[in-house]
Amino acid sequence: MASSPGSDPDIAAIRAAAGRIAGHAVVTPLLESPAVNARLGGRLLVKAEPLQRTGSFKFRGAFNALAQLDAAGRRAGVVAWSSGNHAQGVAAAAQALGVPAVIVMPSDAPAIKLANTRDYGAEIVLYDRAREDREAIGRRIASERGARIVAPYDEPWVIAGQGTCGLEVASQADERGVRLDALLIPCGGGGLTAGCCLALAATSPATAVMSVEPEGFDDTRRSLAAGERLANAPGATSFCDSLLAPMPGEITFAINRRHLAGALAVGDSDVAAAIAFAFSAFKLVVEPGGAVALAAVLAGKLDIAGRCVAVVASGGNVDRSSFSDALANAPG
Amino acid sequence: MASSPGSDPDIAAIRAAAGRIAGHAVVTPLLESPAVNARLGGRLLVKAEPLQRTGSFKFRGAFNALAQLDAAGRRAGVVAWSSGNHAQGVAAAAQALGVPAVIVMPSDAPAIKLANTRDYGAEIVLYDRAREDREAIGRRIASERGARIVAPYDEPWVIAGQGTCGLEVASQADERGVRLDALLIPCGGGGLTAGCCLALAATSPATAVMSVEPEGFDDTRRSLAAGERLANAPGATSFCDSLLAPMPGEITFAINRRHLAGALAVGDSDVAAAIAFAFSAFKLVVEPGGAVALAAVLAGKLDIAGRCVAVVASGGNVDRSSFSDALANAPG
Repeated sequence: MASSPGSDPDIAAIRAAAGRIAGHAVVTPLLESPAVNARLGGRLLVKAEPLQRTGSFKFRGAFNALAQLDAAGRRAGVVAWSSGNHAQGVAAAAQALGVPAVIVMPSDAPAIKLANTRDYGAEIVLYDRAREDREAIGRRIASERGARIVAPYDEPWVIAGQGTCGLEVASQADERGVRLDALLIPCGGGGLTAGCCLALAATSPATAVMSVEPEGFDDTRRSLAAGERLANAPGATSFCDSLLAPMPGEITFAINRRHLAGALAVGDSDVAAAIAFAFSAFKLVVEPGGAVALAAVLAGKLDIAGRCVAVVASGGNVDRSSFSDALANAPG
Repeated sequence: MASSPGSDPDIAAIRAAAGRIAGHAVVTPLLESPAVNARLGGRLLVKAEPLQRTGSFKFRGAFNALAQLDAAGRRAGVVAWSSGNHAQGVAAAAQALGVPAVIVMPSDAPAIKLANTRDYGAEIVLYDRAREDREAIGRRIASERGARIVAPYDEPWVIAGQGTCGLEVASQADERGVRLDALLIPCGGGGLTAGCCLALAATSPATAVMSVEPEGFDDTRRSLAAGERLANAPGATSFCDSLLAPMPGEITFAINRRHLAGALAVGDSDVAAAIAFAFSAFKLVVEPGGAVALAAVLAGKLDIAGRCVAVVASGGNVDRSSFSDALANAPG
């Protein structure tokens, strides 16, 4: 976004974002179950972003970005590309602020995400995920209309907005008198991860922040190991539709490599099990991509015994049939 | 319970219960969706008791009752009968307070409710819902062991505990600057309804409190019309397994007939639609019996246009397959 601050987002930007979204976004609960804790032998806290406005954390960053447009910028409108959650976040923020929005979405996005984006009043332009370049389409539309692009993750205002999620986790853990050993975050392009890294570094520096990705889309994990941004191999598939970004963002990776204590990856069957677990134990609807951090804990990718670990459940926008399939395919 | 106060529960008992359960029960969120409000043309608030400890409001009343046992009473233990949610509430409260618990449950209760009750460390005694009298079984066990009976609804301490749910709704609405026109409550034996009636009468007297029951199990609605307690006709069926009490409680009905502004009933298909709606719009897992109040609003049993209506989603303990069936059978 042309008028974004040139420098990286910082804790001041995140605190300012928290003030901007207050009263518009939901301060989502940090769920906990004594029965689950007893079973795991540790303390598990689940940040319930499916209960966020638009059903995912994406509303935070979108609203923070759009709220900073000046009057001319609001009139000119915004353009975004997204597999679905950023689309809904931008569309709802645009509707709330009276800004026209065009959203470029893949034609195979979950039906619920397409329908909701339309319901928020946005104009949708579909593209073919396999053959077309969504960024090129978005940039062309933005240029034709004089509209601003709201990038899904590589955008300081968006990163600062997503960081409010981490700020809330730290403050809710603190209110509970809990010392957070680790925070696990679903990672696509890395915006939520970067925002939460910055928030925790400032408010709870002893907490080990880790990203979690689907196997085959573990570009952040591999990039951290390589010390440079690597793309995912073409042809990989995962039902975690919200975490299929091709490679880490430039801004997000610069932040994440500085702050992440580790990076994990989980398979689709781990994710289905986590969806079923969130259903049974927390009564929360979590979408595949939103469940990877919980999946990492349940699959034993991280030792939780005697420790306190928070996971972000980052979204709940999943079709009925996909959700039922996950419940049917999960063990137990 | 022998040592319960002889008089009806009142607002002082509810406030005392709130103090007792604080730090043990969850102050569940009052969910709201601007998109849903826009669609309904009114303001809908959903009290999310599936996020309560044990997955339903029942923990409130159970903990309030057990916390008032003296040392000898705690050693002697408790007996309860329940189709599942009261069972889990009593079992978890008993575990938290170190009290032995025997739970009498129907052999056809949802598997998740049986498993959870066992996991909380309670001893389970199964009975045949069609041929046996659960109260007789429970009373025999209580007499043999010198244990106290914790009745599921017709028990002042339990009613006062359930009333804390209403107290929270009133206070959360107030914090939001909302004037509640109506509060709709799923009604089985009437304990949650009675507790919420008392809480709202004291804290938000202009709010019309209404019970909602499954068709065929609308004993409270018919009893209110008749001016006396009437039982449900034998042979009725409903998939709302948590609302199949045979007739209103004596204490609960005395309270409810004094305070209820109305009584509604909904069919199973309305309930399935509400389960699917809670899934899509609120990302909340709601069990059939827990969804009847939401179902009443969505089915148009109450005019919400231009008004602010709160519904209690009273529980979320539903098997995976039943939940998937509800999603598959719901319209849209």
